[in-house]
Amino acid sequence: MKQVIVVNRSLALPKGKLAAQVAHAAVGAFVAAGAQAQMAWLQAGMPKIVVYAADADALVQLEIDAQQQQIPACLVHDAGRTVLPAGTITCLGLGPAPAAIVDRLTGGLPLV
Amino acid sequence: MKQVIVVNRSLALPKGKLAAQVAHAAVGAFVAAGAQAQMAWLQAGMPKIVVYAADADALVQLEIDAQQQQIPACLVHDAGRTVLPAGTITCLGLGPAPAAIVDRLTGGLPLV
Repeated sequence: MKQVIVVNRSLALPKGKLAAQVAHAAVGAFVAAGAQAQMAWLQAGMPKIVVYAADADALVQLEIDAQQQQIPACLVHDAGRTVLPAGTITCLGLGPAPAAIVDRLTGGLPLV
Repeated sequence: MKQVIVVNRSLALPKGKLAAQVAHAAVGAFVAAGAQAQMAWLQAGMPKIVVYAADADALVQLEIDAQQQQIPACLVHDAGRTVLPAGTITCLGLGPAPAAIVDRLTGGLPLV
């Protein structure tokens, strides 16, 4: 079981902002998962990686792909209180889900 | 209700690593919270900030303070698979908890 957080590279977020958005995606996707997936992932030590996709369109497409694979997902729209316009798509949390299934979607993406 | 993630500044973590550790702390502290605090915070849109403390000792002390205030907390020790020695304390997730209570512990800390 793993979680993959995919970041919108085109925004070049500052690191504190990036960390907060990634955390938001991680909790949101966790909450969207079933109890069995949650428990298995917690017991495995919450493995996760943070990767880049090119832009918001890529994140939206990945969310669609995840839904088709029944992978829990959380697309994060920034609230617009600080550096970004409200509604900006910053990142996408995927999983916890079996690594082999998530990797089909995100295995080719570079680490942040 | 808010969550505050406190980062060990002395490590100067690269941003992908930082984001993953902050996400770990956020999920860990969320799981440690009661159902009522979880629900109230989710409904509020999961407000969170990411701040710095000086070093691992400061994080350990904050964890003790949080326990005394009955704030859910998750101290993150790195698994040591990449850039850090195993067991390195990287960050501390606090809350969800009422903002006024968390701010007593972390209100003076600078944003990442």
